[in-house]
Amino acid sequence: MSEAKFISFEGPEGAGKTSVLQALIGELGPMLGDDLVTTREPGGNPIAEAIRAILQPEEDNGMDKRTEALLYAAARRQHLVETIQPALAAGKVVISDRYIDSSLAYQGGGRDLGVDRIWTLNQFATEGLLPDLTIYLDVPADIGLKRVMQHRQGKIDRLDKEDLSFHIKVRNTYLALRDQFPDRIQVIDATQPLEMVITATRALIWQQLKNRNGVHS
Amino acid sequence: MSEAKFISFEGPEGAGKTSVLQALIGELGPMLGDDLVTTREPGGNPIAEAIRAILQPEEDNGMDKRTEALLYAAARRQHLVETIQPALAAGKVVISDRYIDSSLAYQGGGRDLGVDRIWTLNQFATEGLLPDLTIYLDVPADIGLKRVMQHRQGKIDRLDKEDLSFHIKVRNTYLALRDQFPDRIQVIDATQPLEMVITATRALIWQQLKNRNGVHS
Repeated sequence: MSEAKFISFEGPEGAGKTSVLQALIGELGPMLGDDLVTTREPGGNPIAEAIRAILQPEEDNGMDKRTEALLYAAARRQHLVETIQPALAAGKVVISDRYIDSSLAYQGGGRDLGVDRIWTLNQFATEGLLPDLTIYLDVPADIGLKRVMQHRQGKIDRLDKEDLSFHIKVRNTYLALRDQFPDRIQVIDATQPLEMVITATRALIWQQLKNRNGVHS
Repeated sequence: MSEAKFISFEGPEGAGKTSVLQALIGELGPMLGDDLVTTREPGGNPIAEAIRAILQPEEDNGMDKRTEALLYAAARRQHLVETIQPALAAGKVVISDRYIDSSLAYQGGGRDLGVDRIWTLNQFATEGLLPDLTIYLDVPADIGLKRVMQHRQGKIDRLDKEDLSFHIKVRNTYLALRDQFPDRIQVIDATQPLEMVITATRALIWQQLKNRNGVHS
């Protein structure tokens, strides 16, 4: 059986995460076949999707920020149990769009609940399972928000409406997490042209998968 | 302003909690008027009701027990913020059907997640707010389950279907919590006739409210 790998992608609004993921998955898919599992939080299972519907209502529903953090942790737990753990147990490569660092950055940093508190909460949810590699696409908050406004006209979701200071706190928390987990979290400068971001990301993933059959750079 | 009081009711299946609560609220309502707030978890707010719908599905949805514990904590948080805290801030008497001890007993004890772990999780949800008085209606698990089967034919919910050992663990956890919080948690023998249970409960509540205008025994 091949060695399982768990890779997460993180990044603030406007970092180009979706484009980078699409490009990389397009390259890895033909090599890995069924051994590649790409997923995103909350993960497509019915419980987590129902939680997502509560978290992203049509109108403001007065949700307390601790309620929000608990719901994200609940969705993460179910995603872990239904999707990530079975795939890793089968020796697969799992690439997840967002994981624990999103809660640490957005709820812990952005919403001022404190990274330590959100860490403890998510230890309950994840039983300590961390990715082998986390790729953080870094972009300053003002540049990221400008990109979002340009690209998603009329599709601004709740987080996008938060003010610049929120996004600055999110970014600063991601960078502090990189200092705390220097081996796991790798930062890529996402202000570079997309092709360069993809090249840098590809190199990090190849490094993780280099001992795996069928993967070649 | 009158002194705010927070009273929670706890008890396993078949303890007669609903009947006792109805009787007591019927007595307290005319005395306290708008100063009495009776509520029950998850508390009637839209967010918590949506969480309840996920927790009590028509069919088994494969929910992990940690997901379950996180969702109960999320619903508790929103109930606290929307209902309990504003009422206490206004000096009212809040009587809640279930609160933190239910999670400690059912998820911590019954589902074997550990009381300490569920306590930590709920400290995040409640920021340490505990009731002034918790009335635990105690009944041995086998007697409670027999009562449930007699009274709720065709309306058995998910927890009722769990086996006897689950309910024994729940009861033992409630009794251990009483030992841990001897001032807050008062145990009433709910195998007594209903009138005697109501009389004992009334005495405990009167004791809490004795200094309050309009309350007399």
